[in-house]
Amino acid sequence: MSKPTIPKGTRDFLPHEVVRRDHIFSTIREVFRRYGYQGISTPVMESLSTLTGKYGDEGDQLLFKVLNNGDYLAKANPNALDARDSSAVTSSISKRGLRYDLTVPFARYVVMHQNDIQLPFKRYAIEPVWRADRPQKGRYQEFYQCDVDVVGSDSLMYEAELIQIYDEVFSTLDLNVEIKVNHRKVLAGIAEIAGIGNHFSTFAVAIDKLDKLPRDKVIEEMQRGGISESSATRALELISKGRSDLSDVLRTSEVGMEGLRELDSLHVYLDKINIQNKILFDATLARGLSYYTGCIFEVKSTDVNMGSIGGGGRYADLTGIFGLKGVSGVGISFGAERIYDVMEELNLFDSLQIGQITAIILAFDQDSHEHGFVLASKLRKLDIATDIYPEAAKFKKQMKYAGNGTYRYAILIGSEELSTQVYTVKELSSGDQQKCTLDQLIELLQSVS
Amino acid sequence: MSKPTIPKGTRDFLPHEVVRRDHIFSTIREVFRRYGYQGISTPVMESLSTLTGKYGDEGDQLLFKVLNNGDYLAKANPNALDARDSSAVTSSISKRGLRYDLTVPFARYVVMHQNDIQLPFKRYAIEPVWRADRPQKGRYQEFYQCDVDVVGSDSLMYEAELIQIYDEVFSTLDLNVEIKVNHRKVLAGIAEIAGIGNHFSTFAVAIDKLDKLPRDKVIEEMQRGGISESSATRALELISKGRSDLSDVLRTSEVGMEGLRELDSLHVYLDKINIQNKILFDATLARGLSYYTGCIFEVKSTDVNMGSIGGGGRYADLTGIFGLKGVSGVGISFGAERIYDVMEELNLFDSLQIGQITAIILAFDQDSHEHGFVLASKLRKLDIATDIYPEAAKFKKQMKYAGNGTYRYAILIGSEELSTQVYTVKELSSGDQQKCTLDQLIELLQSVS
Repeated sequence: MSKPTIPKGTRDFLPHEVVRRDHIFSTIREVFRRYGYQGISTPVMESLSTLTGKYGDEGDQLLFKVLNNGDYLAKANPNALDARDSSAVTSSISKRGLRYDLTVPFARYVVMHQNDIQLPFKRYAIEPVWRADRPQKGRYQEFYQCDVDVVGSDSLMYEAELIQIYDEVFSTLDLNVEIKVNHRKVLAGIAEIAGIGNHFSTFAVAIDKLDKLPRDKVIEEMQRGGISESSATRALELISKGRSDLSDVLRTSEVGMEGLRELDSLHVYLDKINIQNKILFDATLARGLSYYTGCIFEVKSTDVNMGSIGGGGRYADLTGIFGLKGVSGVGISFGAERIYDVMEELNLFDSLQIGQITAIILAFDQDSHEHGFVLASKLRKLDIATDIYPEAAKFKKQMKYAGNGTYRYAILIGSEELSTQVYTVKELSSGDQQKCTLDQLIELLQSVS
Repeated sequence: MSKPTIPKGTRDFLPHEVVRRDHIFSTIREVFRRYGYQGISTPVMESLSTLTGKYGDEGDQLLFKVLNNGDYLAKANPNALDARDSSAVTSSISKRGLRYDLTVPFARYVVMHQNDIQLPFKRYAIEPVWRADRPQKGRYQEFYQCDVDVVGSDSLMYEAELIQIYDEVFSTLDLNVEIKVNHRKVLAGIAEIAGIGNHFSTFAVAIDKLDKLPRDKVIEEMQRGGISESSATRALELISKGRSDLSDVLRTSEVGMEGLRELDSLHVYLDKINIQNKILFDATLARGLSYYTGCIFEVKSTDVNMGSIGGGGRYADLTGIFGLKGVSGVGISFGAERIYDVMEELNLFDSLQIGQITAIILAFDQDSHEHGFVLASKLRKLDIATDIYPEAAKFKKQMKYAGNGTYRYAILIGSEELSTQVYTVKELSSGDQQKCTLDQLIELLQSVS
């Protein structure tokens, strides 16, 4: 029999990894809830008609499609089948796919449940998604997204609230970050002033590469897209300006001034509260401009050199693709997989006691073992996570098991402990031992639970 | 544009449903952890070679298979394709499937990670699985399983521990249940004494239907399977006996006596601890006998007439299918979907305050709104889940929003509240209003958070 494997780009998680991932997810979830957002859940399998055409041609290629059950070839497109035309056959043998992100399912959900929800609707979702991307370091075919959005209101209060959420989550996780903010209309104003005309998306795609490419390459890319050299050069000058200079630069651009006014409204809220991480206006931030229509956000770690660990923005139209007009919103997401990598690189998991089972009981004869079983029941009733070795095996064997990193304390019971009712308690990391009565034991274990 | 839909047999969950489901899952998870079990996670997509052949022919039919990406027909079996032979084509165009349960992935996991884990290995998993069953009331194509198992030990202490886990979970959820226990070897002994010979599985399948079919139909079914009428009748007599009578009946059956001895060993543990729900020996319990080799468990609600809401047992060989011999174990599962239905029928969710956002702030002019935003920040920092209406809209509009069942209290701020710094606080379920200073407000909201 060949050894079993799992599909490329997927992962098993060992218990200590599950605990660390849960620590990240539950920290994020608790902050979402504290800010009044509610969890929703959508199926892993969506109708392909919901997913197809929403992520561009490349996205369609990357969708995982689920084969219809039963005699699926009976309904397959016969000509396409004879022509071995895979893409033409697909829709006739597959009607379901695995969700590709959490945004399209959210849009579908808002449309389907518009009578069950009230606007503004504040929701979060922390769930896995699937993409048939080529797997590589840090990129998986099955991975989690953590999204929080509010739809049905244009209030800039929500932009401020989402920045607070970033600040609070990353502070709680002990990560130092920089929260970059820009506004699509500021970029549009710069494009207008620089004379970029109809080439806004070329401009946006090009400046999004400024942190990877030298200036002249970015200018070249704009020129290839039909922007004149002088406009390209002027645009790069303008976007490197700070916010205060831009009021002057953009004064003749209506759209640009509207962007600045919205950033001012956002600051009315932000200036009233305490934010621990740095918030930075950055006119070069140009992510997601195919859908963001207002503020744009990006978060980077200031301790570790890694791509963005969060991003988001405001969009004018979430649900138009499903026939419901006029639902705008704003949302952010957390890059949980990268956050994990940053925390691991900073050894932030090591100092946490999370995930350890508080105690394991080791007994050295049958009477002690049965006594230990009763003791385990007592401790568990007191909400102390407790294990017990399943039989009165040799000391060495039990100690080896206890020392595997899962447990914090070992409680040793032999005939002496049984007769005196005083337990020997060993802290497994230090090897320190002490004698404890039942009450002392409970007090000790509750203090670390 | 046609209205979006989701695949049959799948579900969206509204916020209040997510909260209720999370309440069940987190109650179960916390008890698992308290008993020293650790969470693992496996991919949703498994290799089809891992899944196929593990659930019988019917199970293979019910597996959801994921289409290979790219030009999958290029590698499809050409003859099978021309013959339109769906089942012969499948393996050439699909190499991944959605997991069908949590047991086969667990077995694969133990084999793949045998060097990372120590035996006995205690794990739980609470994750969705997929089956292409015909959807009907209470049966879905995508649903959750909650499994807890320990592998690598024959100690009957674990059977006692798992019964305690059932007892503790259902007590915590306020459900009254009956935990039925049987032992495969007791059944084998009865079959031996009744002269059933090689027809054990016919016998087991037939008696598993005793709660649905009349006695004579069960006897007929045994006869159709090759069991003589006298043996069938005798067997039905024997299995209706209580445990004390069986010691006498089975005294000449070695296997039967071994089963009784194991039940006695289990009771050595159970008799020492306090179990709140009823534990019942039931020789007619015959579930899962194609894999269970020792104790068998089943849990039923005593308040609501519903199928089993939990089941499990001991198995001699978990990982043999993947080439690793000698790993036995015992495990139980919780029928989370049915537990939800039982709790709903008993109105157990109504009395829980779970899921409500503690407060929503409503403000009636821009200054009050900005004050409210700062107040929301303060309350959130104190871990009080708080929302705020995004603008100073009309009173009626804001009150309608606040009254949608999501919030417990509304905090009203207008010019008077702003000048006196005394807030009007309304309990939304009763309509009761009171005036609170900031300190009183915090005290009130913390007392219900």
